[in-house]
Amino acid sequence: MEKSNIKTAGLIIIGNEVLSGRTQDTNTKTIALKLGEIGVQVREVRVIPDLIETIIDTVKHFSDTYDYVFTTGGIGPTHDDKTAEAVAGAFNTELFQHPDALCVLIDHYGGAEHLNDGRVKMTYVPRGATLIDNPVSSAPGFKIKNVHIMAGVPKIMEGMLDNIIPTLLGGDIVKSRQITVHKTESSIAKILQGIEEKYKIDVGSYPKFHDGSPEVTVILRGVDENILDEALGVLNTLIHAID
Amino acid sequence: MEKSNIKTAGLIIIGNEVLSGRTQDTNTKTIALKLGEIGVQVREVRVIPDLIETIIDTVKHFSDTYDYVFTTGGIGPTHDDKTAEAVAGAFNTELFQHPDALCVLIDHYGGAEHLNDGRVKMTYVPRGATLIDNPVSSAPGFKIKNVHIMAGVPKIMEGMLDNIIPTLLGGDIVKSRQITVHKTESSIAKILQGIEEKYKIDVGSYPKFHDGSPEVTVILRGVDENILDEALGVLNTLIHAID
Repeated sequence: MEKSNIKTAGLIIIGNEVLSGRTQDTNTKTIALKLGEIGVQVREVRVIPDLIETIIDTVKHFSDTYDYVFTTGGIGPTHDDKTAEAVAGAFNTELFQHPDALCVLIDHYGGAEHLNDGRVKMTYVPRGATLIDNPVSSAPGFKIKNVHIMAGVPKIMEGMLDNIIPTLLGGDIVKSRQITVHKTESSIAKILQGIEEKYKIDVGSYPKFHDGSPEVTVILRGVDENILDEALGVLNTLIHAID
Repeated sequence: MEKSNIKTAGLIIIGNEVLSGRTQDTNTKTIALKLGEIGVQVREVRVIPDLIETIIDTVKHFSDTYDYVFTTGGIGPTHDDKTAEAVAGAFNTELFQHPDALCVLIDHYGGAEHLNDGRVKMTYVPRGATLIDNPVSSAPGFKIKNVHIMAGVPKIMEGMLDNIIPTLLGGDIVKSRQITVHKTESSIAKILQGIEEKYKIDVGSYPKFHDGSPEVTVILRGVDENILDEALGVLNTLIHAID
């Protein structure tokens, strides 16, 4: 058996607006799918409030636990944007005004005279950080150690993520096969367990209702496509046999 | 000043399918909004995989940290449904077949002869747990200590949540006022900070792009509606003054 090369990631979604239920987070899905394509597996997501101490603790723990860490939210110009300060705290460093960030914002706003306090705030990053280009609204994200700090606005986040992806070293890419079965989950439970044990792959079953009838989507996941195809064939046969 | 009565909650979203990006979690938003209406504030959300040890650690930590804990996912009939076993482990108890769960499932499936292994699995809950009625597909959720275990399918989760809500003791209800301003966030940053400091309320600002132009939604949150209304009036005046 080949040695597996697993790369892991943790996501930290920073923002009271997600916790209050006012805003539907969509960044998790976007990031997980794009990382999956290059073989980086999201293992944990935490949604936390805009509190310095909570952000510090979470960033430290995630940086020690996962190969890559991504945060969204809290790097704008207002008083409730505390992510940069917290990340500096997590790595025992301080904020400094990054000269490239200053240039980018002066250029974006058409002159230094247009940089009010809020805009100046966005030129400060933790000492030792490198900038992440923001193709949408110019104020950059940044990276320090294995932690990538991105904006919370989905469109801006995606622009930053597209700039980060080519810098990451991916691992084994998890492939998948899926079928949807118009049966109850319990009627195929034993078959699924048998497939997982026989082929040593991850078998997930996701029930839902479609026009009032139960249906189950079964997803087979693994790094070897030949094994997935064989497992899918056997699964199909077994499920049809109980019709 | 009145003594505040804060009730907190933590949510644990269990499921590889959310971590892989395949499924968009919507349960967080639903739960947060419904809890908010009765004065229970969601303080943290964790999305974790279907791994027994991870579920045990997270349930223990959340149960000790928040007034109420809610989990979604992993209580179905298949091998990847490990939540009940993990929650039993978190509270040092074991699974037992709850007689009421058995009755409900026998009734739902039209006789004991229709209970296959997968369905029988769903009648086992941690010893000491009380059942949560499932109005959609009958297999119950359950509650043990301050932890409420719900299904992951949104429609079933909502049915269970509606049965849980009347059993919770709420706290102060956080009210909100909001305005949307067609300005950049940085241009109003100082005003927002001033409002937060003067009125001791939570002021959030949420930028986005609308037809290519920046706009910011400002949300004022607090438990005293008179203070919110006064703060909103002053905020409106100050923002118009910079036009």
